[in-house]
Amino acid sequence: MTTLEHLIVALSLAKKAKRKDIKGNPFVGAIVVDENGAIIGSGYHQKWGEKHAEVFAIEEALLKTADLSNCSLYVTLEPCSHHGKTPPCTDLILKSGIKKVIVGSLDPNPNVSGFTLLQQNVIDVSLLETPEAISLNKIFFTNQKSNKPFVRLKMAATLDGKIADYAGASKWITNEISRAYLHAHIRTEVDAIISTAKTVIQDQATLNIRIPNTQSTELNAVIIDRTGAMLEPAKASHPIFDNRTETKVFIVTAPGAYVAGKPLPAHTEVIETPFNANGEIDLDTLGKQLLQKGLYSVLVEAGAIFSSYVLSKKWVNELDYFIGSKLLLDSNAKAGFDIATSTPLQNAAPLTLLESMSFENDMYLHYAIEVL
Amino acid sequence: MTTLEHLIVALSLAKKAKRKDIKGNPFVGAIVVDENGAIIGSGYHQKWGEKHAEVFAIEEALLKTADLSNCSLYVTLEPCSHHGKTPPCTDLILKSGIKKVIVGSLDPNPNVSGFTLLQQNVIDVSLLETPEAISLNKIFFTNQKSNKPFVRLKMAATLDGKIADYAGASKWITNEISRAYLHAHIRTEVDAIISTAKTVIQDQATLNIRIPNTQSTELNAVIIDRTGAMLEPAKASHPIFDNRTETKVFIVTAPGAYVAGKPLPAHTEVIETPFNANGEIDLDTLGKQLLQKGLYSVLVEAGAIFSSYVLSKKWVNELDYFIGSKLLLDSNAKAGFDIATSTPLQNAAPLTLLESMSFENDMYLHYAIEVL
Repeated sequence: MTTLEHLIVALSLAKKAKRKDIKGNPFVGAIVVDENGAIIGSGYHQKWGEKHAEVFAIEEALLKTADLSNCSLYVTLEPCSHHGKTPPCTDLILKSGIKKVIVGSLDPNPNVSGFTLLQQNVIDVSLLETPEAISLNKIFFTNQKSNKPFVRLKMAATLDGKIADYAGASKWITNEISRAYLHAHIRTEVDAIISTAKTVIQDQATLNIRIPNTQSTELNAVIIDRTGAMLEPAKASHPIFDNRTETKVFIVTAPGAYVAGKPLPAHTEVIETPFNANGEIDLDTLGKQLLQKGLYSVLVEAGAIFSSYVLSKKWVNELDYFIGSKLLLDSNAKAGFDIATSTPLQNAAPLTLLESMSFENDMYLHYAIEVL
Repeated sequence: MTTLEHLIVALSLAKKAKRKDIKGNPFVGAIVVDENGAIIGSGYHQKWGEKHAEVFAIEEALLKTADLSNCSLYVTLEPCSHHGKTPPCTDLILKSGIKKVIVGSLDPNPNVSGFTLLQQNVIDVSLLETPEAISLNKIFFTNQKSNKPFVRLKMAATLDGKIADYAGASKWITNEISRAYLHAHIRTEVDAIISTAKTVIQDQATLNIRIPNTQSTELNAVIIDRTGAMLEPAKASHPIFDNRTETKVFIVTAPGAYVAGKPLPAHTEVIETPFNANGEIDLDTLGKQLLQKGLYSVLVEAGAIFSSYVLSKKWVNELDYFIGSKLLLDSNAKAGFDIATSTPLQNAAPLTLLESMSFENDMYLHYAIEVL
């Protein structure tokens, strides 16, 4: 097997982990290969705070032979070099006697410098980055690099880009298959949905996961609510607070909008975040706060103004864009994006088409967007 | 072979014709099948004004046997029953002795009542309509039913539906592959492009067919130009008039805008069409005039106002919509559709997705639209 093929084996191991088990940790797989090309140890990171992939692989190899000096270690992510929840993997690698390490992607965390540390210790370390290794940990890399969740933004619009008619009606722009796809394949992939109090109140939104013929599944909700409208007594019966046992409704208000000690609906938590004079939330602060709450990956499903705001601030990593098979042909209808930026065409945000699917007459377009 | 299989054979014959040979005539194929299921005659309509498919098939069959009374005729379109450019096919069918006819689609021309006429003459006639037979002659059927060309409308917009930035820049919204596809697979399919004087002047448009590494091909142009701006002496050097030998530039003006006898650029013809008090062209009249000029299938490539107008009048049959992989995120940018209709969502024009293709990061969506 070639170096690339060995890394692909390690990648396939990495993918065996489940996001809910590893939480904000990366997917990592590792194998130890002996001088004859036999895989004598393998493993993957399985659970947040527990053993790293390299440890599984090296421990298994050491059961077979005490001398790993002719073995190579293939690991899909740069080994850690610091004391975190577990001791540094570089220590174990050095102790094991392995002299050759092939790394599939670098860790953007500045505390992780395993690559350099191994080099300094006369290990033959090489990097073979593959798009798959990068894509596998897109959430982790964004969390590390940008100190914010990986952000997807969903929009469902007519072909002419309208998310509601002139009177505000938006049910339904897209067909049942599109909506089922959103619930089954997009909402299920994130730790929380972010919306605004305005949208949640207007749509009586539950922001849960509803798949036809199955019970609905709860999902964390983050509601941008500067003045704390959702905390008023009249809103206590809003359906978003219903049927929660494992998830929370995070109400994001300006500091002081919520008076500490006032009763809150069950499973509700207030996050205080600065807003500027235009009523715009400080996304840098919010990003950090959401990571602290364990929300590593979020989906924005909001109106035109908030959606445009987060896009204009380059806070969004991917766009989940549904085109309903309708043409409203009405400049009075509500456009999906609403912000005046006077952007020249050559400065338009370039999109990378990740996938496209047709659902009967609807289209689903999944894009990556250039971020900061 | 089943009845359907026989019709599929006839359809595959029909498709052998070339649009430029049959012009506004339909694609038609026919076979004569004897009592043993053998195909003893076949043919298709090959050239405008010449022999119909049934004639080829029956004449060939008659060379093999003088008695066709045990034979069946499969023809993809209802046989003609009137004296047009050729004698009625129903006469030949009756004379041939054929007793069974299977028709693949009905002719919407009220002068064509071959189906009923054959029934009245004790022929066993049946209709087996297939979507393929309907689609094959979508241009002909639209010409017959609506007395207008088959109209496609092309738009190239950013994901947020903008066809130019706030300053009017539109080069380029889509990538080279999208533009090559437009030229090689859409412009080549129509008899003319329709645009407006404003767009043609602004873009210095030639409206020809340009395919990388091949010489450009001329194409008829129809320019909606109420006041005759394109006929002013200063416009005589506009590139749209260049390099024409077989095609024309049709300048559509309000009656009287062009003074008969004034010199015209070469290969130019004026069409006088009524416009209403809002400066909107009478599409019913225009449709008839374009058919008279032999323009059976046209492609609208114009700005937001004319595009919205023809769509709002349900004059468009299909939409060729390109999404460039850009997000302008600017309400000051130029939207692709610009008309205020206050249409409720439930009255939005439903679209049928015919095909979708990705060209690197661009998308091409081909829709059929509900028409009058």
